Amino acid sequence: MNNFQFQNPTKLIFGKGQIEKIAREIPKSARVMMTYGGGSIKKNGVYDQVKTALKEHNVIEFAGIEPNPKYETLISAVALAKCEKIDFLLAVGGGSVIDGTKFIALAMNYDGENLWDIVINPKIASNINPAPFGTVLTLPATGSEMNCGAVISKIETSEKYAIHHEHNFPRFSVLDPEVCYSLPERQLKNGIIDTYVHVMEQYLTYPANAMVQDRFCEGILLTLLEIAPKIMADNKNYDLMANFMMSATMGLNGFPSMGVPQDWATHMIGHELTALHSLDHAMTLAIVAPYLYDVMRDEKRGKLLQYGERIFNITEGTEQEKIDKAILSTREFFESLGVNCSLSANGVTKESIETIVNRFAVRKAKLGENSTITAEIVKQILDKAF
Amino acid sequence: MNNFQFQNPTKLIFGKGQIEKIAREIPKSARVMMTYGGGSIKKNGVYDQVKTALKEHNVIEFAGIEPNPKYETLISAVALAKCEKIDFLLAVGGGSVIDGTKFIALAMNYDGENLWDIVINPKIASNINPAPFGTVLTLPATGSEMNCGAVISKIETSEKYAIHHEHNFPRFSVLDPEVCYSLPERQLKNGIIDTYVHVMEQYLTYPANAMVQDRFCEGILLTLLEIAPKIMADNKNYDLMANFMMSATMGLNGFPSMGVPQDWATHMIGHELTALHSLDHAMTLAIVAPYLYDVMRDEKRGKLLQYGERIFNITEGTEQEKIDKAILSTREFFESLGVNCSLSANGVTKESIETIVNRFAVRKAKLGENSTITAEIVKQILDKAF
Repeated sequence: MNNFQFQNPTKLIFGKGQIEKIAREIPKSARVMMTYGGGSIKKNGVYDQVKTALKEHNVIEFAGIEPNPKYETLISAVALAKCEKIDFLLAVGGGSVIDGTKFIALAMNYDGENLWDIVINPKIASNINPAPFGTVLTLPATGSEMNCGAVISKIETSEKYAIHHEHNFPRFSVLDPEVCYSLPERQLKNGIIDTYVHVMEQYLTYPANAMVQDRFCEGILLTLLEIAPKIMADNKNYDLMANFMMSATMGLNGFPSMGVPQDWATHMIGHELTALHSLDHAMTLAIVAPYLYDVMRDEKRGKLLQYGERIFNITEGTEQEKIDKAILSTREFFESLGVNCSLSANGVTKESIETIVNRFAVRKAKLGENSTITAEIVKQILDKAF
Repeated sequence: MNNFQFQNPTKLIFGKGQIEKIAREIPKSARVMMTYGGGSIKKNGVYDQVKTALKEHNVIEFAGIEPNPKYETLISAVALAKCEKIDFLLAVGGGSVIDGTKFIALAMNYDGENLWDIVINPKIASNINPAPFGTVLTLPATGSEMNCGAVISKIETSEKYAIHHEHNFPRFSVLDPEVCYSLPERQLKNGIIDTYVHVMEQYLTYPANAMVQDRFCEGILLTLLEIAPKIMADNKNYDLMANFMMSATMGLNGFPSMGVPQDWATHMIGHELTALHSLDHAMTLAIVAPYLYDVMRDEKRGKLLQYGERIFNITEGTEQEKIDKAILSTREFFESLGVNCSLSANGVTKESIETIVNRFAVRKAKLGENSTITAEIVKQILDKAF
């Protein structure tokens, strides 16, 4: 096991009817900016629950944070927060709203001229003391509700970057499984895939003798495999949604990654596909992951065998056959959710692959747990996925 | 899944050579009281590592916190802390030192006359703002290094009580697996059993549709079953000790207990056995737990079957046979570590059982996840365990 530090101060408030608890988590004296997306929270009743809970607070709103939150949108929120002297943010939405709000929390307390520097220069971000914020989660997927990471996109340059800041955790996050009942099938599917691949990025690397963490990751994967078809058949089941929410939040809150190597190459490649083709984030993961495991099968050998055995009960055959079967089972799971795991079927062209490979080449990318996934390897993966 | 709130702010600093990191976790201006036990830290080098790390800090020492930390000892530490105007505590030791230090952290900031009130009156404790403290863990077992609970004993009355205070978490805890190399066999065995039963208290209740938490608990149990014989055979293996430490800390830090019923009757009964007979805490758990599961087999039916199948691969036979086998496998695991799971073999008399049963009767005890374990049921359990 590798040395590590772990700290996660986010307070989880989990369960039915818990949104009203936000009133006591946000100081009465605070000037609050509530951030949200396209208005689905007005249809499913979450907006009303939040407004009712905060009826004695001073609240302004910033709506319109889009999927894959855009820098261009967020800088307006920053300007408004500064102008209104906001000192507490409340993100009401899924990962995109929460990620966007994390950027706002940093940017509103940054005095520099170019706010994009916060995204591309970790040193600048680390010197900012972010504004406090809480979240009301409406879509289990990204885990952003209990971590300090965010992914921000820039339209101007078709770029998408992840930022991390060790003090940028939500103060609290409310997870009420009932808010999931109104989620469309596409978002449920995406959330399940996103969570699955988050766990895989922290698990499917090389053995590091981290037995508790491995079992924890396997527990989330087994849970997702069990609940996924049931959720797709019945999106009004409280316990299923509760386990989905738990899986998503626990899958990327630092628990699974204590003292272990991490991959994240699937995400890096996926971000480029989303930036160029506006593919759903989860879709890009479902397409890339199985081919990445295939191309990297030698480096991932030990964990692929463990994964196959513990998750899919694959115990027969040669090592290569077992690994083939583990990868195939993974792709079949994504396909069972209705994903077509091929780039061309999703409108990605050979030219786009070239663009992406060139971007990684320019950055002299060395991705993955062993820093061995170069632009050349990315090309092999994307060609196979074509 | 039940509604729950979860927050755990403790910073884990895990790995080889990490004790030196405490220097930057404790403010330079702090007046530090270092608390420890009987001096084993002077033999295994931990004392020197701590003193070296804090060579630029203002540190006084309080030694002599014993196993099952005694109120009578701790009030001297409180008096010293007040006299020396201490404002940061550093516990260096196992669960007893850490538990004792949690009491000191509360008591040194309490103005009332009778410090025992903090232990027996949760309302009094909840109004105290405890002093900040960190820990350097030397014995994985109680999980105290990452939770806000403590167990304090009083010699005068042979009493032993658990206290909880939501703000009494360690600020940080250093877990260096190498400090375990010098642990005697008895402490290793006790730590493994203690951890196993901690997880069972949160897991072996009734099904609550908490799939991720169940898998998490099962992961720790499977890890303990795998590493226990290896640790008993080789106490200088870094990865084994790292997984032991992870199991102990993760087993009682709030992760496994999110949104699930909890039992803790084994602990309540065990505390009485320790208070009367000075039996090792873990020994009392190993004796009581299997008989408690046996007596409560109807209420615990669903989970006993799940436990048997997922932990011991018990899939054959009638339900009663499967449950018998799951309980037997549990006792055999404890016995494999050298425990004699019988009260009489450990010097407990029929009169002591009567005393304990009377204590629970006087308190009108209703223990367990369903509050159904009355004094009469305690008698059944202890008679079987005799």
